Amino acid sequence: MALLHEDRLFPAEEKTQAIARRLYAGIKNLPIVSPHGHTQAGWFARNEAFPDPVTFFVQPDHYVFRMLYSQGVTLEELEIGNHPVRNPRAVWHIFASHYHLFRGTPTRLWLDYAFETLFGLTERLSAATADTYFDTIEAKLATAEFRPRMLFERFGIEVLATTDSPVDGLEDHAVIRASGWKGRIVPTFRPDPVVDPEFAGFRVGIEALGKLTGEDTATWSGYLRALEARRRFFKTLGATATDHGHPTAQTADLDEAEAAWLFDAVLGGKAEAAQKELFRAQMLTEMARMSLEDGLVMQIHPGSVRNHNAQIFAKYGRDMGADIPQATDYVHALRPLLDRFGNEARLTLILFTLDETAFSRELAPLAGHYPCLKLGPPWWFFDSPEGMRRFRELVTETAGFYNTAGFNDDTRAFLSIPARHDVARRMDASFLARLVAEHRIEEDEAVELARELAVGLVKKAYKL
Amino acid sequence: MALLHEDRLFPAEEKTQAIARRLYAGIKNLPIVSPHGHTQAGWFARNEAFPDPVTFFVQPDHYVFRMLYSQGVTLEELEIGNHPVRNPRAVWHIFASHYHLFRGTPTRLWLDYAFETLFGLTERLSAATADTYFDTIEAKLATAEFRPRMLFERFGIEVLATTDSPVDGLEDHAVIRASGWKGRIVPTFRPDPVVDPEFAGFRVGIEALGKLTGEDTATWSGYLRALEARRRFFKTLGATATDHGHPTAQTADLDEAEAAWLFDAVLGGKAEAAQKELFRAQMLTEMARMSLEDGLVMQIHPGSVRNHNAQIFAKYGRDMGADIPQATDYVHALRPLLDRFGNEARLTLILFTLDETAFSRELAPLAGHYPCLKLGPPWWFFDSPEGMRRFRELVTETAGFYNTAGFNDDTRAFLSIPARHDVARRMDASFLARLVAEHRIEEDEAVELARELAVGLVKKAYKL
Amino acid sequence: MALLHEDRLFPAEEKTQAIARRLYAGIKNLPIVSPHGHTQAGWFARNEAFPDPVTFFVQPDHYVFRMLYSQGVTLEELEIGNHPVRNPRAVWHIFASHYHLFRGTPTRLWLDYAFETLFGLTERLSAATADTYFDTIEAKLATAEFRPRMLFERFGIEVLATTDSPVDGLEDHAVIRASGWKGRIVPTFRPDPVVDPEFAGFRVGIEALGKLTGEDTATWSGYLRALEARRRFFKTLGATATDHGHPTAQTADLDEAEAAWLFDAVLGGKAEAAQKELFRAQMLTEMARMSLEDGLVMQIHPGSVRNHNAQIFAKYGRDMGADIPQATDYVHALRPLLDRFGNEARLTLILFTLDETAFSRELAPLAGHYPCLKLGPPWWFFDSPEGMRRFRELVTETAGFYNTAGFNDDTRAFLSIPARHDVARRMDASFLARLVAEHRIEEDEAVELARELAVGLVKKAYKL
Repeated sequence: MALLHEDRLFPAEEKTQAIARRLYAGIKNLPIVSPHGHTQAGWFARNEAFPDPVTFFVQPDHYVFRMLYSQGVTLEELEIGNHPVRNPRAVWHIFASHYHLFRGTPTRLWLDYAFETLFGLTERLSAATADTYFDTIEAKLATAEFRPRMLFERFGIEVLATTDSPVDGLEDHAVIRASGWKGRIVPTFRPDPVVDPEFAGFRVGIEALGKLTGEDTATWSGYLRALEARRRFFKTLGATATDHGHPTAQTADLDEAEAAWLFDAVLGGKAEAAQKELFRAQMLTEMARMSLEDGLVMQIHPGSVRNHNAQIFAKYGRDMGADIPQATDYVHALRPLLDRFGNEARLTLILFTLDETAFSRELAPLAGHYPCLKLGPPWWFFDSPEGMRRFRELVTETAGFYNTAGFNDDTRAFLSIPARHDVARRMDASFLARLVAEHRIEEDEAVELARELAVGLVKKAYKL
Repeated sequence: MALLHEDRLFPAEEKTQAIARRLYAGIKNLPIVSPHGHTQAGWFARNEAFPDPVTFFVQPDHYVFRMLYSQGVTLEELEIGNHPVRNPRAVWHIFASHYHLFRGTPTRLWLDYAFETLFGLTERLSAATADTYFDTIEAKLATAEFRPRMLFERFGIEVLATTDSPVDGLEDHAVIRASGWKGRIVPTFRPDPVVDPEFAGFRVGIEALGKLTGEDTATWSGYLRALEARRRFFKTLGATATDHGHPTAQTADLDEAEAAWLFDAVLGGKAEAAQKELFRAQMLTEMARMSLEDGLVMQIHPGSVRNHNAQIFAKYGRDMGADIPQATDYVHALRPLLDRFGNEARLTLILFTLDETAFSRELAPLAGHYPCLKLGPPWWFFDSPEGMRRFRELVTETAGFYNTAGFNDDTRAFLSIPARHDVARRMDASFLARLVAEHRIEEDEAVELARELAVGLVKKAYKL
Repeated sequence: MALLHEDRLFPAEEKTQAIARRLYAGIKNLPIVSPHGHTQAGWFARNEAFPDPVTFFVQPDHYVFRMLYSQGVTLEELEIGNHPVRNPRAVWHIFASHYHLFRGTPTRLWLDYAFETLFGLTERLSAATADTYFDTIEAKLATAEFRPRMLFERFGIEVLATTDSPVDGLEDHAVIRASGWKGRIVPTFRPDPVVDPEFAGFRVGIEALGKLTGEDTATWSGYLRALEARRRFFKTLGATATDHGHPTAQTADLDEAEAAWLFDAVLGGKAEAAQKELFRAQMLTEMARMSLEDGLVMQIHPGSVRNHNAQIFAKYGRDMGADIPQATDYVHALRPLLDRFGNEARLTLILFTLDETAFSRELAPLAGHYPCLKLGPPWWFFDSPEGMRRFRELVTETAGFYNTAGFNDDTRAFLSIPARHDVARRMDASFLARLVAEHRIEEDEAVELARELAVGLVKKAYKL
C-alpha cells in the first residue's frame, strides 16, 4: 500500500510518460526556492514543536476548512479560531470522515504527500484510520525532528520568503539572523495595510509608520519617505521583493499636486470608493518608482474580492476561505504605470492573476513585449495540476518560458511546501514531455528548461 | 455497420480507456434521473403516438434547426411552426442531406444514438438513406411501443421534471397522477412570466395569479402570498424545485418599503430597464427566502440574451435557436442574496452558467465555500463532450465533486434524453479514468464517484 | 540531424497519431489559399532579391522582435527601422544567441520550417551556428530561385491577398497583372484609415478619397459614394473581400440624418471618443450594406489595443509588437448590424477575435445561428498549435465545421506562409484524428473534412 505513486501526475501515454519521468528525475531533488508565501517567521525564531495534528494540518489551511464548510461542517465544529484547539482528536475525526470531499483536488495531493513522506502513513485517511493518523502524527510532531528548523532543512529549502507589513518590526527575522541558524528566511514588503484606504486600521498604520521612521506621515512627501525608509529596513533583513494585493490591477500616474491632494483626502477619511481606488492605483506607480531606485522586485496579486462572506468576516476576520476572484483587466489598468516605467529593463514587475482568461488575452502579450514584466505562476485556486497545465498552454506560445518566474508555493501551510513544489515540478515535466513527444522542442532543451522552471528562473526573477 | 462504437467518447490511450470502460460498465444501466428539462407533461397525460419523424426529431430541437438555418436553410423550408407538418418527407430530406453539418457536434451523437438504439438504423443518415430512415421511423412511431409512456419506461427514467409557469394549472400532471400509471413526472416552479417585468404578458400573468390564489396580487404582500401559495400547489403535484431564467445573476436585498414601491413601479408599467433588473434581482432573494421556508430547491439559469434575432422573434416567437450567451458576473451579483442566506446549509441553490470563464474564477470558489451553493452541470451549448470535460477540469480542483449536482438533460427533445445521459456518463467515466491513470485518485474511489455523478448527487441535490 | 520531425504536432498516442498521419497525407500537398495577410504586392511587382537574412527573417516579423525586446534586447540593437540594415551579421548574431527564447512558441516552428525546407539547414540555430546560417541564407537569397515570384510558386500558393488602404492606387497590383506572371495576388479593401477617426491622417485620407473618385467627400453621401467607388476599383484588380480592424466589434444603425450629423462631427475634428466609436460602429453597418450590394466578403478583426507602448509608438510608429488584446463583446455589439442584415444568406461576414472567451460563449452560438456569419481561424497570438486546438474544441460543438472559414496566415513574413499553413493542416488533422479515435466521427468523414478545412471552406467563404 502507498498513497503516492511514483508516476503520479505524469501523462498516461507511454512515450510521453517516459520522457516526463526522465525530466522529473533531473529536477526532483533540486533545492526549494520559495520567494513568496505566508509562513510565519516566528516558527523559525522560536523553533517550538507544533502542538497537534489539527494545528498543523487543518487550522492554517483555508483550502481544507473552506471545503468542509461548503459541505455543512461548521467552523465551530472545526474549532477555527481556537488557540490552542480544545479537542483536536474530535476535530481530526470530522476532517478524516470528510476526506472523500477532497478527491480530485490539489489539497488531497498535498496532504497525502505529507502523510506519507513525513509520517510514513500509507493507508488512506478515513474515519476508520483517523485515530492511527492522529496518534502517529501527534507522536512525531513531539519529536525534535519535527521542529520548524529541522523540517525546513529536511524539506531542502534554500530560501523562504515571508510576507510582512511595513509596520512590522521584523523582530522574528532579526532573531533568526542572530541565532546563528543557517536557514535563509527573508521578509517581503507588503504595504497593503498602509496603502489601501479600505484596509482595517489604515490610518493607525500610517501613524505607526511615522513613529517607526521619524517622518511626518501626515504629509504626502513624508509618507513616501517613510515607505522608502521601511523598504531600506526590509532590505537589511534580506528582502528582495515587495508584494501588492489590490482588488484590481489599476495603476495611475498623477502629478504631484494631485497625488498630495488625494493622499489628504484618503487620510482625512473623506474619500469616496473611486478615490480610494485611485489612491491604490497611484501607489502602485509610486512603488514601481521606488523599485527602480532600490532594486526590490515588485509583485502584484490583484483580483480577489476579499471577505466575501460578511457573516464569517464579522465572526472570524480575514483569510477564512471566503475570498472570491473577480474578472480582472490588465491591458488598460497597467497602462499608466507602463507608460512611465514599462520600458525599463532594470525593473522587474511580476504579475499574477485569479482570472485565467487574462493569461492568453492580456498577460502573455504584455509580458511578451514589455521588458519589465514577468508572469508569476498560477496562483491560489490555480496552484493545481489542471491550473498549471492551463497556465503553460495559455502563456507559453506568446510569452515563452523565459518571461515566466518559476514557482511560488504561496502557502500558510508549512508542511505543504515540498508537496506543492513537487506537483509543480511534475506538471512542468509533463508539459515539457508533451512538447518533446510532439516534436515541438527536443529533449536536451526540455532538460534545460525543466531546471530553469524549477530553480533558475525564480532565482533570477526574484534576485535570490 | 453500426453508428455507435462501444468505446465512443473514451480516451484513445489504452490504459486510460480500459479504466473508463470499467467505470462506465458500473453506471451504464443505472436509472435516469432527470431533474430539469422541457418535455411536455401532456405527452404522458394523453399518451398519443408522435405523428411523424419531423415532429419527433426536427421541430422540437432548436439545436437541429439552428444549425440548418445558419447554413442557409430557411425555417419555412423546415416547416417550423406548422402543426401538423404538411410535408414531413420533404423536410426530412432537407435534414438528411445536410446531416454532415452536424459532424463534431453533440447533436450528431444524440441523433445517432436514437437512430440506432430506438429504430435499429445502422447506416449513416444522408440524402441516400433519407427515405429508409423516414419509412422506418414513421412505421415504428405508429406502434404501441413508441407511445410516450412506453418510451419513458424503456428509457429507464426514474423521475422526469417538467418546467412550468406559476399560472399553469398543471392539469396534465394531475391527469398523469390520476391515471394510475407509475411513471414519476413532476413539475418545476418557474416564475419568470410573473417575476420578469420584460416577459410578454407580465401583468396579465400577475392578474391570473391573483385569480388562481384569491390573493390581491396588485399589492406586494398579496403578490408574495400568491407566489407562496402556488409553490405549495406545485409541491402537492410532486415539485421539489424552482427555476429562474434571468438575463443576469443579479440579486438584491431591499427593505420591504423599497420592494413594495418597486413592485408598484413595475406593475404600473412605468419602470425603467434598471428598475426591472432590480425587481428581478429582488425576486431571486424573495425566492431564496421562500425556499428556506418550503424546502424547494432553487435553480438559477442566468446569462442568456433571449431572442437575439429580432426578425425571427417577430415571426416565430420564443425559443427559436436565437438565444445567445453573454458574459456573466456572479461574485458581485449574488452577494446580496448570499449576505442574507449564504450560510444556510438547509438552502440548496444550484447555479448554472453560459459563461464558462466563471467556472474556475467565480463559481467553483463560491460553491467551494458557501454551504447553500451547488454547481449545476454544463448547460445548453456546453452539454457536450468538450463542454463536460472543461467543466470537470475547471471546477473539480476548487469545488470538488461533491459540490456539483449531477447531470441535467434540460431538453425539449424527449428522444434525446437517454443519449444525453449516456454522453454524460461516458464523459464522467473518461474524466475519472484520467484521474486514476494519473494516480490522482484510486480506482475504488472512481467507482464510487461514477455512481455519485450518475445518480447519487442529483437525487440528493434535488431532494428526489 | 533534422529540425523537423515528420510527425511533429501529431498526438503522441499511437492510434490517434496513425490516423492524424493518414489525414495529413491527404492534404499536405494541397495548394495554399491565403485570403488575408500583410505581404507587400511590391515584392512581386518588382521581384527583387531580399537583401539579407535580417531583412528576410527579423525585421518584418513582430513576433520575433517583440520576444527579443521583452528580454532586454533593444530595438536599436536589432536595427528595427533601418532600411537597409547596416550590420545584418551583428543583428543576426543577437537573434541567434537568443533563439532559446522561442522554445515552445509557434515562431520557433515557423522559423525551423523555413530554415530546413528553404535553406537546407538542419542544425539548430544558436550562437555557434549563427555564421553558418547567415552565410547559407545570404548566399541563397542572392539566387534567382529566391526571388519573390519563384518563392510564391515554390510555396504552391494558389492565391494571396494583400491588405490595402482605399486611397492606395494599387499600382503594384496593376503591375503584377500587366506583367504576364500567372501568380494570383489580390488586394483587400481595408478602409480603417478613412473610417476610423482616430487613425493618424484620417481627414487627409478622406480628402484623398475625394480626389481619387471625384466625389465630394466632405458630405456624408459623397463620402459613401466614394467608398463604393473604391470598392468597385478594388474588385477590378481581383479583390473579393474587405477587412475592418476596429478596437471593438461595436456596430450601429443610425438613421441617415443622425449618420450625416455624426460624419460632420468627426470630420470637423470636434467629436468625442464615444462619437468616434459610434462612427466606426455605423461604418461597419454601412460596409455590410455595401457588401450586400457588391458581393465583397466582410471581415472584422476587433479587439486589439493598438500601440499600447507609448514610447515605442513615438519612436517607431505602428505595428511594433506592442498591440495588446482586450476583452471583446460580440453579443451586444453586433446586434444593430445583425438586426438589419443578419438573416441575409447572401452576405458573408467573417468574425475574428483576440478574446478566446468569446469563442464558445458568443461567437460559436452566433455563427451557429445567423446565416451571414462565419468564424475566421484563430488570429494573431492564437495562430499557434494550442490556439488552434482550443479554437476547434471551443467552436465545433456549437457551430460545427461548416460555419468556419478555413485558415488565414495573416502574416507580414512571406517566408512563414507555408510553415503556418503546415501547422494548421497538422493541427486540424490532429483534432480530426481525435474525433475519429474517440468514435465521434468516422474516418471517411474526417478525410473529407480535412480537405474542407485546408482548402474547400476558405475558397467558398472568400469567394476565391
